[in-house]
Amino acid sequence: MVFNVTILGCSSATPGWGRGLPAQVVNYNEQLYLIDCGEGTQMQIQKFHLKANRIRYILISHLHGDHYWGLPGLLSSMSLQGRTQPLDLYAPRELAEILTVQFRCTGIVLQFPLHFHALNMEQPTVIIDNEQLSVSTLPLVHGLPTVGFLFREKEKPRNLIKERLPSDLPFEHLKALKRGENVSWQGKLLTASDYTRPPKPLRSYAYCSDTRYHEPLIDHIKQVSLLYHEATFAEDMAARAYQTFHATAKQAATIALKAEVKQLVLGHFSVRYRELAPLLNEARAIFANTAAATDGATFQIA
Amino acid sequence: MVFNVTILGCSSATPGWGRGLPAQVVNYNEQLYLIDCGEGTQMQIQKFHLKANRIRYILISHLHGDHYWGLPGLLSSMSLQGRTQPLDLYAPRELAEILTVQFRCTGIVLQFPLHFHALNMEQPTVIIDNEQLSVSTLPLVHGLPTVGFLFREKEKPRNLIKERLPSDLPFEHLKALKRGENVSWQGKLLTASDYTRPPKPLRSYAYCSDTRYHEPLIDHIKQVSLLYHEATFAEDMAARAYQTFHATAKQAATIALKAEVKQLVLGHFSVRYRELAPLLNEARAIFANTAAATDGATFQIA
Repeated sequence: MVFNVTILGCSSATPGWGRGLPAQVVNYNEQLYLIDCGEGTQMQIQKFHLKANRIRYILISHLHGDHYWGLPGLLSSMSLQGRTQPLDLYAPRELAEILTVQFRCTGIVLQFPLHFHALNMEQPTVIIDNEQLSVSTLPLVHGLPTVGFLFREKEKPRNLIKERLPSDLPFEHLKALKRGENVSWQGKLLTASDYTRPPKPLRSYAYCSDTRYHEPLIDHIKQVSLLYHEATFAEDMAARAYQTFHATAKQAATIALKAEVKQLVLGHFSVRYRELAPLLNEARAIFANTAAATDGATFQIA
Repeated sequence: MVFNVTILGCSSATPGWGRGLPAQVVNYNEQLYLIDCGEGTQMQIQKFHLKANRIRYILISHLHGDHYWGLPGLLSSMSLQGRTQPLDLYAPRELAEILTVQFRCTGIVLQFPLHFHALNMEQPTVIIDNEQLSVSTLPLVHGLPTVGFLFREKEKPRNLIKERLPSDLPFEHLKALKRGENVSWQGKLLTASDYTRPPKPLRSYAYCSDTRYHEPLIDHIKQVSLLYHEATFAEDMAARAYQTFHATAKQAATIALKAEVKQLVLGHFSVRYRELAPLLNEARAIFANTAAATDGATFQIA
């Protein structure tokens, strides 16, 4: 089952060096989740051959303009392109006012239902919860209220080893085995460990941007498969990072190390860095399995 | 003296086929005027190697989103890039509310003075008037209040033919000759036609987008050097053009012909047209000196 993330923009504040403004698309089982929507996101979606109308959810981390100024254009284009499917938008509550004023002044009437969900910016909250996946918020530390997003696969049933099972075993017994319980059948004990295989490990993805270095985050993202953490600055700019509520590459790697994640992707780079090797090297010295985001790159979550 | 226009985006409503959303930069004597500011304008400015901080005026024709959704990002980036020079923004009055709400919710404080001038959307009005150039509005016919913009060079003085002039001719007499008046000096009549050359012809530029075919426009743009007129559709879509308050390429050419302009540039193309040859051919059948806008192209105003 597909679970990956495609970077649409990994610059911060202003675009530069071929890096667009913050936006990325999580694909879970062909359901698309857009995280943040900086100016130009609709162009990046076209450029990287994604289908805007397959986006089912939009999640906005905070209301710095580089994270949402592409939203009115994307919504408007979806409508012009004939979208009728509903779209769920999760964002800080002030975004409703911003969109309402613009749609009123601009005379826009979207041709699809847009469901606005105001985020609780203070407490970790489950915002999307379906059979296979939950998405919850991760409060971060930034210049204005900001949350990250944590995608977790749900507990899956064990897989039956069909060739070992008695052919007439009742359905209820099969379900119990899949839950990992042992069952008795015709005087014989059938153990879950003999008749089922464990499910594939649960996969998870954490998006943490924008934020200062924030240790309380570690418990929430423990052992995630993939962590996207902002790395606006190199370490020689640590004071500036602190002052502007951002993180360095080394700090991102320290979070990854302490949270024992599988892989780290750095993003949200200041335009002062044309080359990212210095940031990547500083991070890899702490946490080896680190990559730098590039626009258009897809990272598998495994 | 430089007088040209560089197209930053010539698509309409949604971007496509390598065409960005409406925006263009008029350069008059190295003073830059940005007309409209669709989403992605700041990226186009970078792409085509213009200097955002040299823009002195921004003019917004109307409040359909494709004409202004790049504005918050551009203003924010100008500020982050250290702009301190004032900027004059001419736009429909509702834009002030839109920007105010966003700046408040986003916590943006621009580091330069932004002077907002609400446009009179009903009457042709001179909005910028300096020694060399005037800019005035041209009310258009569109789905919501919309104006075009007319740039006209001011009447210039005649050029003195210095080698013919008596070396001791008083300054007041020189000024009179430059105004085209004859003067008497030491019993001799010096005629303006003998001692001065006529100034270069006055140049002018009209931006007319978005609009229906609108004949009252013709008087206002009579004999302009360059007319940029929207041509959203080909002629087989004339009914759709009328219904959506847009024009066809043929209608744009008809306006150009009747107004006796020197050159016509078509723009604001619907994304339904990958190739523009059909629109260009329809226009050239009416008005030969027609070009199609392309992003990044600079047209001299002569």
